[in-house]
Amino acid sequence: MSDSRPIGVFDSGVGGLTVLQAISRRLPKESLVYFGDTAHLPYGNKSREAVTRFSLEVARFLKTKNIKLLVVACNTASALALAALKRDLGIPVIGVIEPGARAAAKATASRRVGIIATEATVASNAYQEALARLVPGVAAYGKACPLFVPLVEEGWWSHPVTTQVAREYLAPVAKARVDTLILGCTHYPLLKPALGRVMGKKVRLIDSAEETAREVETLLERRNLRRHGGRGTRRFFASDGPKRFLTLAKRFLGVSADRVTIWRFD
Amino acid sequence: MSDSRPIGVFDSGVGGLTVLQAISRRLPKESLVYFGDTAHLPYGNKSREAVTRFSLEVARFLKTKNIKLLVVACNTASALALAALKRDLGIPVIGVIEPGARAAAKATASRRVGIIATEATVASNAYQEALARLVPGVAAYGKACPLFVPLVEEGWWSHPVTTQVAREYLAPVAKARVDTLILGCTHYPLLKPALGRVMGKKVRLIDSAEETAREVETLLERRNLRRHGGRGTRRFFASDGPKRFLTLAKRFLGVSADRVTIWRFD
Repeated sequence: MSDSRPIGVFDSGVGGLTVLQAISRRLPKESLVYFGDTAHLPYGNKSREAVTRFSLEVARFLKTKNIKLLVVACNTASALALAALKRDLGIPVIGVIEPGARAAAKATASRRVGIIATEATVASNAYQEALARLVPGVAAYGKACPLFVPLVEEGWWSHPVTTQVAREYLAPVAKARVDTLILGCTHYPLLKPALGRVMGKKVRLIDSAEETAREVETLLERRNLRRHGGRGTRRFFASDGPKRFLTLAKRFLGVSADRVTIWRFD
Repeated sequence: MSDSRPIGVFDSGVGGLTVLQAISRRLPKESLVYFGDTAHLPYGNKSREAVTRFSLEVARFLKTKNIKLLVVACNTASALALAALKRDLGIPVIGVIEPGARAAAKATASRRVGIIATEATVASNAYQEALARLVPGVAAYGKACPLFVPLVEEGWWSHPVTTQVAREYLAPVAKARVDTLILGCTHYPLLKPALGRVMGKKVRLIDSAEETAREVETLLERRNLRRHGGRGTRRFFASDGPKRFLTLAKRFLGVSADRVTIWRFD
């Protein structure tokens, strides 16, 4: 049995392409349909209600593409809208919070874990709760870093300003002597060099892309949804653009998104 | 004849409150209805199509509040959607670009004018064209400053990071030896101290709030739409929030928005 239906992956913008890449590498036979909700981005400073509404719109659109599984490659949407998506869709849904927390649980020895993310993700306590389930007695330190996304989108990944901002944001997390830091936003892996400089070599930086790809594989396996032959295709949709989407996609990871179809919600 | 219908004022978020305040001060008898499109913000990195669609939604909502005049207190919406709004609404519409350009035209002696704004506003050439109509032979230097809005919203108005970012963004504008700098985004007036430090005392910083309020007065006068008695009320609507809206409104200008009604577009 081979299931050739595509996997849907969505994010508020281009950040989720890091997750798409990890899935592609691990499961090259699977076809992927990516949606970047660039008309509504960012999600990170909006309410649970707004983020849920936007996420449902995107997910329903992806369902019309006959996806067999939805990956919510956006931390804010995973933190605020995962339950609503699972209720609504009638297909398996995977978020990035649970995999990220699991990777951190494996990594931490001191059980002191930092979480950096958008305002909405930190305020939701989703990572804190997932960690508490996985690591008894864990001490979790959440810190919202609203300037990181604009800094990444500006391309200032290793700019001195970014290091200075990181120093300021991370001071309380560093002071808490964490041994593990969850990068709780798909933009943040691009700041790894700057974050590493600030936190020091002893702190493990966790990004959920790899662990999420692993979870996708496990779920497909378990539910007998894998595609066994051929080579996967990738299609890209965005709700606004496409110029900005393409520029950022390229800047982000040289993703070969040579064509993005614009789908406008009305 | 006294026309007690309110004036509508809209922006993608809270930045337009600077314009609302200027109108309030100049025309205290007029009632104002403000709409912050916080579900869709920011506008500055989105396409003309998306910004026009969002702006029309907001404007049509404000029309149901029986407004006599619409003030587009958002530079990006003024740059990209003003013509569409004028066609659609059937009431007078005032943007902030024309008043800002007029103020700059009055201020410049050297006819070398800088414009800092969002990516979309700079790319639209709206300021450059307005200036060219008002100042023959003007040399206009536009520079997009995408990090300024997030820095303002983070409250880092006079943070060293903001000065460093300003130094980097403004270097080419300063090098062009402008004597006047248009702050082409309603968030930027809050950065005046930092911008002043970078540009030096000889460069005039122009924000369009005052000039826009003046234009509102002139238009009401000319069309016989003024309200002659009483004291104006203010009502606030936002498409998401309201917590963030209220926090930022207060941080922005201690605006007495003790209540914000949330209006969701679906």
